[in-house]
Amino acid sequence: MYKAKAYSAASATAPLASTTIPRRETTEHDVQIEILFCGICHSDLHSVRDEWHSIMPTVYPIVPGHEIVGRVTRVGSAVTKFKTGDLVGVGCLVDSDHTCPNCKDGLEQLCPNQTLTFNSPDKHNTAPVTYGGYSESIVVDEHFVLRVPTNLDLAGVAPLLCAGITTYSPMRRWGNLTGKKVGVVGLGGLGHMGVKFARAFGAQVVVFTTSPGKKEDAHRLGADEVIISSNADEMRSHAGTFDFILDTIAADHDINAYINLLGRDGKITLVGAPEKPLAVSAFSLLVGRRSLSGSIIGGIAETQEMLDYCGKHNITADVEIIPIQKVDEAYERLLKSDVKYRFSIDMASLKSE
Amino acid sequence: MYKAKAYSAASATAPLASTTIPRRETTEHDVQIEILFCGICHSDLHSVRDEWHSIMPTVYPIVPGHEIVGRVTRVGSAVTKFKTGDLVGVGCLVDSDHTCPNCKDGLEQLCPNQTLTFNSPDKHNTAPVTYGGYSESIVVDEHFVLRVPTNLDLAGVAPLLCAGITTYSPMRRWGNLTGKKVGVVGLGGLGHMGVKFARAFGAQVVVFTTSPGKKEDAHRLGADEVIISSNADEMRSHAGTFDFILDTIAADHDINAYINLLGRDGKITLVGAPEKPLAVSAFSLLVGRRSLSGSIIGGIAETQEMLDYCGKHNITADVEIIPIQKVDEAYERLLKSDVKYRFSIDMASLKSE
Repeated sequence: MYKAKAYSAASATAPLASTTIPRRETTEHDVQIEILFCGICHSDLHSVRDEWHSIMPTVYPIVPGHEIVGRVTRVGSAVTKFKTGDLVGVGCLVDSDHTCPNCKDGLEQLCPNQTLTFNSPDKHNTAPVTYGGYSESIVVDEHFVLRVPTNLDLAGVAPLLCAGITTYSPMRRWGNLTGKKVGVVGLGGLGHMGVKFARAFGAQVVVFTTSPGKKEDAHRLGADEVIISSNADEMRSHAGTFDFILDTIAADHDINAYINLLGRDGKITLVGAPEKPLAVSAFSLLVGRRSLSGSIIGGIAETQEMLDYCGKHNITADVEIIPIQKVDEAYERLLKSDVKYRFSIDMASLKSE
Repeated sequence: MYKAKAYSAASATAPLASTTIPRRETTEHDVQIEILFCGICHSDLHSVRDEWHSIMPTVYPIVPGHEIVGRVTRVGSAVTKFKTGDLVGVGCLVDSDHTCPNCKDGLEQLCPNQTLTFNSPDKHNTAPVTYGGYSESIVVDEHFVLRVPTNLDLAGVAPLLCAGITTYSPMRRWGNLTGKKVGVVGLGGLGHMGVKFARAFGAQVVVFTTSPGKKEDAHRLGADEVIISSNADEMRSHAGTFDFILDTIAADHDINAYINLLGRDGKITLVGAPEKPLAVSAFSLLVGRRSLSGSIIGGIAETQEMLDYCGKHNITADVEIIPIQKVDEAYERLLKSDVKYRFSIDMASLKSE
C-alpha cells in the first residue's frame, strides 16, 4: 500500500477536505494512473450527501469521482493493454465478476457483483470501500482501464467516462439514427453530450429545455430546434413525430408530455433516475405502441468504442475547469444547474495541498 | 338502407334492449355478413356506460360488439376476397384512410382516421355513428373483413378478433419466443389468450394471478407455472428472469413488481389501459435496460395471420355462450371477473325478438 493525496467528505454534512488515502500496490493485472482530470457527476453529490441511502448507503470517509482521465505511471507484470505514459480513462466501474452472463456479453455495468469506482466494497481490502477520482492517483485492473485518444482536450474527455457513455449507449442501441428525429430532454451534463452525439449520428436534433436562456447554446451544441417545454402549443405541434427521445432529467417531471411526442413504435429512454415514481399513462403507450425504457452507462468495450468515436469525430464535453479546492462551491452551483456543462477538476491543484 | 335487428343501450344507465337499426346497402367494395357470434369485450361495457367519455364520448343509442364472426350473405360487385357463404370475422375496425403511413404499412389500428366498429362517426352516414356486432347483420368494406378457418368452433373464434389479436401482436413483435421465459399478468379474456399463444410459441409460460382458485385452470390453458402475485417471496424468487411479460390488467396495479422480474433488456407490454397513471420506478428500468411499452390490437394483415395461425394450431378462446337476452347479466358478471374466459353471444337468439 502507498498513500495518495485525495479529497474526501467525513459525513453527509461535512465539506470535502484534503486527506490522504491508501492505494494498493500494483498487482500483476493492475494499472497505476496519475489522475490529471476528474469530472464532477451529480452522483458524486448524491453519494457525498448520502441521498441514495436506501439503495447504496454511503460509507465515510467518501472519495467520489468516476470520470477519470490520467496517465499510466506503472503497470503490473501481466498487463498487456497499457504501458507507462499512456493516456487512459476510468469510468464508473473498476471490477466485476467476469463470469456472469452480463460480463460474458461485455455488459459489466449490469454485473450483479460489480465494483463501483467509489463507495463500493473493496475486494482488495485496501480500505472498507473503493475510493474514486478526487485523488492524485488510482490503481485499477487493466480490464477496466480505457485508452484515451491523444487528439482530445483532456479536461473535456473526463466527463465522457460517465456522461458520455450514458448518452452514447442508448442512442447506439436504438439503431441508425441518421435522418431520424431525436429529442434530448434537459440540457445539462448528460443532455449536452446527448445533443453532440445525436448530431454526430446525423439525426435531426430537438432539445427540450425549461430555460429560454439555453436556446442559443443548444443550437451551438448541435440542436436543429429548441423547444421550451412549458409551451404547450409548441409541444403539441410535435405530437407523434419523434423516433427517439433521450430523457436526461433526474428530477420529477411530466413524462407523458414526452411520450405523446413519440411516433409509432417510438422509444423514450431514461438515463436520469428521478427519485419519485413517474406517472405514466398506459393509454399514451398503447396508441402508438410506444415504449419507455432505461439505460445505465455502458460496458467496457462500448465505452472504448465511444472514446474512439469521440477521437475520430473530435467530441468532448464542454467543461468548466476548477481546482479541487472549489469542489464544494461547484456542488452548490451544480444544484442550481449553474455550469456549462460539466465541472472538470484539474488535479494538479491537489499538489499544493 | 335496410333494417336489422340489434341490441342497443339508450343511455349510460339503461339496460341493453331489442331494437332495429339501419344498415347500408352493400356498395361495390362491401361484404354483407349474417352475424353468428359476437364476443363481449370489456370495451363494450366501458362504451355502453360512457366510462371513456373524456377520450371517446358515447353517442346513444349504442350498439356495441367488435368480436364478430359470421357468414357472408352478399358481396359488392368489386369484391374479390369473399363470396356468399364464406365464414368471416370483423374486429375493432371497419375503415381507415388507406393513405397515411400507418395504413400503408398495414397498421390500420394506428390510423388517425380509422373508423371503429361501433360508436365511431359513420362515413357512410347510415347513422350518426357505426353500430357494432350485437346485431343480426353488418355491412363492412372487404378490406376489414377477415377469413375465418373452417375447422374452428365459431363461438370461440369471435374473441380472437379482439382479445386474440391484442395478445398475439405484441408477442409476435417481440421475436421468437421459443424457449423464452414469458409472463402473463392476469387470467381473464386477454390473459387466457396470452397463455394459449405463449404456449403455442414454445415459451416457458408463467401466469400471475391474484386468485389462487385460477391455478389449476391456468395449468390447463398452458401455464408451466402459476404465481400468486400477492406472495412477495414467490415474486422475489423470479426477480430478473423474464424475457417478456404481457400485462393484461386494466385496473390500477403495481407495475414495478413486474418490471423487477424482467431480465436484461426485458420488456413488459401493456395491453390493458388502467385509467390512472401507473407509478413507474425509473431506477427499475435503468438497472436492466428494461422497457415498458404498450400495444393495441393489430393491423388487418396481422389479424388474418393470427386467425390462420389459430386454424393451424387449433386455438380458440374459452367461451361461455349466452343468448343476447342475458347480455346485461353478463356485464354484471364481467365486472366480477365471473367468466371463463369470454362471453360469446349466440346471435341466433336475436331471431326470437
